[in-house]
Amino acid sequence: MRGTIIYAPGDIRSEERPDAAVTAPTDAVVRLSATCICGTDLWAYRGMEPIAEPRPIGHEYVGVVEQVGDGVRNVEVGQFVVGSFATSDNTCEICRAGYQSHCVHREFVGTAQAELLRVPNADGTLVAVPGPPDPDLVPHLLAASDVLGTGWFAADAAQAGPGRTVVVVGDGAVGLLGVLSAKQMGAERIIVMSRNESRQKLALGFGATDIVTERGDDGVARIKELTGGLGAHSVIEAVGTQESMAQAVRSARVGGHVGYVGISHGVELSGRELFFSGVHLHGGPAPVRRYLPDLVDRIWRREIEPGKVFDLTLPLADVAEGYRAMDERRAVKVLLQP
Amino acid sequence: MRGTIIYAPGDIRSEERPDAAVTAPTDAVVRLSATCICGTDLWAYRGMEPIAEPRPIGHEYVGVVEQVGDGVRNVEVGQFVVGSFATSDNTCEICRAGYQSHCVHREFVGTAQAELLRVPNADGTLVAVPGPPDPDLVPHLLAASDVLGTGWFAADAAQAGPGRTVVVVGDGAVGLLGVLSAKQMGAERIIVMSRNESRQKLALGFGATDIVTERGDDGVARIKELTGGLGAHSVIEAVGTQESMAQAVRSARVGGHVGYVGISHGVELSGRELFFSGVHLHGGPAPVRRYLPDLVDRIWRREIEPGKVFDLTLPLADVAEGYRAMDERRAVKVLLQP
Repeated sequence: MRGTIIYAPGDIRSEERPDAAVTAPTDAVVRLSATCICGTDLWAYRGMEPIAEPRPIGHEYVGVVEQVGDGVRNVEVGQFVVGSFATSDNTCEICRAGYQSHCVHREFVGTAQAELLRVPNADGTLVAVPGPPDPDLVPHLLAASDVLGTGWFAADAAQAGPGRTVVVVGDGAVGLLGVLSAKQMGAERIIVMSRNESRQKLALGFGATDIVTERGDDGVARIKELTGGLGAHSVIEAVGTQESMAQAVRSARVGGHVGYVGISHGVELSGRELFFSGVHLHGGPAPVRRYLPDLVDRIWRREIEPGKVFDLTLPLADVAEGYRAMDERRAVKVLLQP
Repeated sequence: MRGTIIYAPGDIRSEERPDAAVTAPTDAVVRLSATCICGTDLWAYRGMEPIAEPRPIGHEYVGVVEQVGDGVRNVEVGQFVVGSFATSDNTCEICRAGYQSHCVHREFVGTAQAELLRVPNADGTLVAVPGPPDPDLVPHLLAASDVLGTGWFAADAAQAGPGRTVVVVGDGAVGLLGVLSAKQMGAERIIVMSRNESRQKLALGFGATDIVTERGDDGVARIKELTGGLGAHSVIEAVGTQESMAQAVRSARVGGHVGYVGISHGVELSGRELFFSGVHLHGGPAPVRRYLPDLVDRIWRREIEPGKVFDLTLPLADVAEGYRAMDERRAVKVLLQP
């Protein structure tokens, strides 16, 4: 099969690899209809995460089940499925509490930029859609696999909802789908921090009501100005840097909620600042599985179009060009067709 | 009047001071029936917070209203009242959201180890009890002024409740009353981390079910052992050091809630650890006013006895001995009688 290997920062290659296969009774193998490149893949690509040795990459996927292990009961060969980057049994105490991304049997997916994907914990991970999807639904379903689910979790953790003002820090795919999520949850006002015109347009299309281009202290001052001096009820943090976390915490009002989903890179939070901020903080790897059935429903009923974040589609073989386009911010998010 | 001045670390003096007086129309002056020494007063006493110049100290109080400003409507001369360390108008948007300790008109109380106390924002700050209290109720009402209200907020932020296992980090008065609060909220299991026998006894009396004497990694391992390997649903942090915050976050399960009320001293939180912990974090200066009417009711109905944390009672003039006793951990909490 064709698969993607990251060799070193900036060095991504599409190669012939052994076919993915069932190795445990709880595995399934999925023939991917689409996969994509995530903002988090760029950390390694940019040399900000170590690459000990060449390894496969990719964790977002939709496709048709091709093979299942003997122990698989909930999904069948031929079904079109969506899964998350964190596999889960969906039965342990942590899963039942809604934190499937921390399942006691969790295995992270990391080989999905390929034609075939082995999915551990298939029963608890894969969600079958009602039937073969219309082709135009595929990008939307693919978005549910991570970026939509993650944006949704962030909006949920930030308690976006009626009467609430939501600030979104980060105009990448997750931040943009945080906008869509907050809108779906009924948020009254959604303020996006962005300096990029095409991303601003996407945000407005997803339901943003205000754009703030200022950053740092000026950005915080602008948010305060827009919120009667108090700050936002809800803040979505979708970057993961020291600056973005500070921006998020300082943009929230006392008693407000910060939902943070940008994987933390070198962030140190001052306990004293947090203490006196009086905010609620919750986040981490999104339990996408908790939301998947609902998200698939909304997509299937054509209520939301999260796949709009894909602004470049390439053959899987051209994955390296996809990374370049995202690295240079020429594309928000790249869909790969196996 | 007699008042208390902190001159320098270790140097606390009881002195003759000008009588407290109404200086704004929204002030009240309260003749204190009792006041006390707080764990947070020890930060300055121990030289861990700067003392720029000699200043009054103390922020916990109950007593009888002696004088009110022209604008005061809700309390009357002669009423017995309880107030919080953070005064609040109780009408602004932040107060209405339940965060009176961050009121837009907040002034902190800092002169309460005295005979008379000026209370700004009297209408929104002071809660009158139903009538003159029996003398044995006074210590309980005094505890509501800060340590009980703070422990209650921590338990609430940690979402202590039925079916939940609660860990309490810190066996000072706030931690101990966190135990009482969690018990009142219906928590199933309450684990206290303490090595001090008399504090362990108090904790068990307040409703603790388990005592853990280990600390650091061993303490975390013991909590995991007691919670099926997962950690606690709820953790109350009532110290404010790097070690105690780490203990708190690591003792909580994924999706669990950490309520932290120990004023942060030099704490730096690793964003990455927090991210992968998946916990909810909420805390800060407790909005005691939110809970005061309910807490006064419970005390008045003799359902709770939070004043049991006072294990030493001294005349106000002997305040210096009170600080020494708390500093040397000879006393959990010292009540002062003006």
